[in-house]
Amino acid sequence: MPTPVFLPVGSQATVKTLIPQELKDIGVRMVLANAYHLYLRPGVEVVEKLGGLHKFMAWDGAILTDSGGFQIFSLASLRRVTDDGVLFRSHIDGSEHFITPGLAIQYQEALGADVSMVLDECAAHDEPFDKVKEAMERTHLWAERCLKAHKHPGQSLYAIVQGGTYPELRRQSATYLTSLGFSGYAIGGLSVGEPKELTFSMLEQTVPLLPQDKPRYLMGVGSPEDIVEGVARGIDIFDCAMPTRVARNGALYTWEGRRNIRNAAYSRMEAPVMTVCGCYTCRTFSAAYLHHLFKSEELLAYRLATIHNLSFMSELMRRIRESIVSGTFEAFKNEFLASYTPTDEQVRLTQKQKWLKARRQG
Amino acid sequence: MPTPVFLPVGSQATVKTLIPQELKDIGVRMVLANAYHLYLRPGVEVVEKLGGLHKFMAWDGAILTDSGGFQIFSLASLRRVTDDGVLFRSHIDGSEHFITPGLAIQYQEALGADVSMVLDECAAHDEPFDKVKEAMERTHLWAERCLKAHKHPGQSLYAIVQGGTYPELRRQSATYLTSLGFSGYAIGGLSVGEPKELTFSMLEQTVPLLPQDKPRYLMGVGSPEDIVEGVARGIDIFDCAMPTRVARNGALYTWEGRRNIRNAAYSRMEAPVMTVCGCYTCRTFSAAYLHHLFKSEELLAYRLATIHNLSFMSELMRRIRESIVSGTFEAFKNEFLASYTPTDEQVRLTQKQKWLKARRQG
Repeated sequence: MPTPVFLPVGSQATVKTLIPQELKDIGVRMVLANAYHLYLRPGVEVVEKLGGLHKFMAWDGAILTDSGGFQIFSLASLRRVTDDGVLFRSHIDGSEHFITPGLAIQYQEALGADVSMVLDECAAHDEPFDKVKEAMERTHLWAERCLKAHKHPGQSLYAIVQGGTYPELRRQSATYLTSLGFSGYAIGGLSVGEPKELTFSMLEQTVPLLPQDKPRYLMGVGSPEDIVEGVARGIDIFDCAMPTRVARNGALYTWEGRRNIRNAAYSRMEAPVMTVCGCYTCRTFSAAYLHHLFKSEELLAYRLATIHNLSFMSELMRRIRESIVSGTFEAFKNEFLASYTPTDEQVRLTQKQKWLKARRQG
Repeated sequence: MPTPVFLPVGSQATVKTLIPQELKDIGVRMVLANAYHLYLRPGVEVVEKLGGLHKFMAWDGAILTDSGGFQIFSLASLRRVTDDGVLFRSHIDGSEHFITPGLAIQYQEALGADVSMVLDECAAHDEPFDKVKEAMERTHLWAERCLKAHKHPGQSLYAIVQGGTYPELRRQSATYLTSLGFSGYAIGGLSVGEPKELTFSMLEQTVPLLPQDKPRYLMGVGSPEDIVEGVARGIDIFDCAMPTRVARNGALYTWEGRRNIRNAAYSRMEAPVMTVCGCYTCRTFSAAYLHHLFKSEELLAYRLATIHNLSFMSELMRRIRESIVSGTFEAFKNEFLASYTPTDEQVRLTQKQKWLKARRQG
């Protein structure tokens, strides 16, 4: 698979609103699914019985499953973390579950992912050194156990570097995990609230210590501008829910930055939201139509916006790859960052009432 | 266009969740849009400026617009009804609007529909004779005015028979409107809460009085079983939001009746929800996957269920037409009604919280 690559997020075995063919048309080669979500619902054994994740979601492209480490530490309610594993409560129904590194691998093998991830412990970005160190050391212990548990020859297993925002821990983690020998190396626990300079600085500490010939994967990143910065620091794989999530809130990517399609400026615009875009949405509909769908809380709005944003990400990654091949990435990066205005604007979450209405209307 | 035909509802210039190509693939030839909704949002002049409804929603099939009479009397808050027209308040923002028969035609011509409907006054099914008679007489007066206002030669104009559940009024309305000479005749104000026997009995009173060579359209009907009964009584055109609305609540049509895909029985079912179905959803996904999407409140669920139900309606209408051509409709009808179990079960509306969650999750 050509890299750098961006993986759309399909935690629950669906990239929200889209069918597999649309992902193909957009140029998507690999998606991320989440073992935590699928373990809780519909259950690993259900997916396995139905022929594995590819068949279940009718996707013949590649699938990377996250082990669920991050979700257990962010979504679930934690009961106890020991070297053995994590006791947690489901965010869906409060039921209690115990996961170990071995089980995490077993579940991902049963799901039939092409790439699986080790179980890791994620410390919050503002925790003290000792706490972060402890989480890192447990992540290392678990990585070893995952490697031992990993049996499926057709499945790659990636390690996850931790260490918070402490350069010495990041270096230590990268070096140690590299010594164990994985098929790929992820960098976890970044872009979780820390300042961006710190995110990038951690990459600079970590990436040079990872094997040159193995994929390097920055988990949960990100925005177009962060991806460009990540590529500049040697990252090959990215995943992030942001392009699809902000799409559903009406924020559409353009080469100049995110645009809020709900803005009145679009209410009569005959042109597509992005004139230079070749995606289905921009080829077919005016910005005014998309604006109308969002104002009317029509479900098609979320789908058309998702198609546009994933197409944008696909085109961004294509341009990045092209510029790397032609040796002009640095120029591309500077040009892109000069014209693209990042936004901190939190696109307003639509109220419960509107959703309910959209559902009720026939 | 071959009839009998069923029109999916796209009130706000979108058949919820679907793109035009999907409608085509399903076999849809004509959709219904609503002048009331589009007048309020995005506004008739916006749609007109953008090239009309076909271009706006990228649909090159046929479009029938309802005048909005029914919506004004059901959704909007009424201020005053006189022979001149209706003063009403928008259900969206409470703004006040005045519509006349002439304006209703003007708006529908500006939208560029292929078929437009007269403005009618709808009485509730349980109103006394005098009230229903008054509404019918005003509907007749407005029908005359609509006919005079109708200028666009490329657009058909259909009258709407009213008269509630009073046979003499229904007969009077059908006879009078027929004498005016329209391109087609709709039957309005039925299936609005009255017993089904009464609905069918009103059709029996009305249809024989309408011209044999003009389309007869039963508005807002309906369920598969009601459509079969309607065809038996001479109806050519149906529209209804039900197949798409119940789809979004997880009720999927089969030849034996509606099935609730949220039911635990589907949680591990490898077969599609309907094995004999050729729709995209059934060709591609297991019932278990669809069950999972609904349980997870995934937006793709609503789309896949919509595709299935509209495909079912399309196939139902195809079988009806085929049986008419081969002179076996009566046998088809009896067989269908014997195997199809209608349901009064109200598929539980999903709670606000779940919608919000679906929107938030990335």
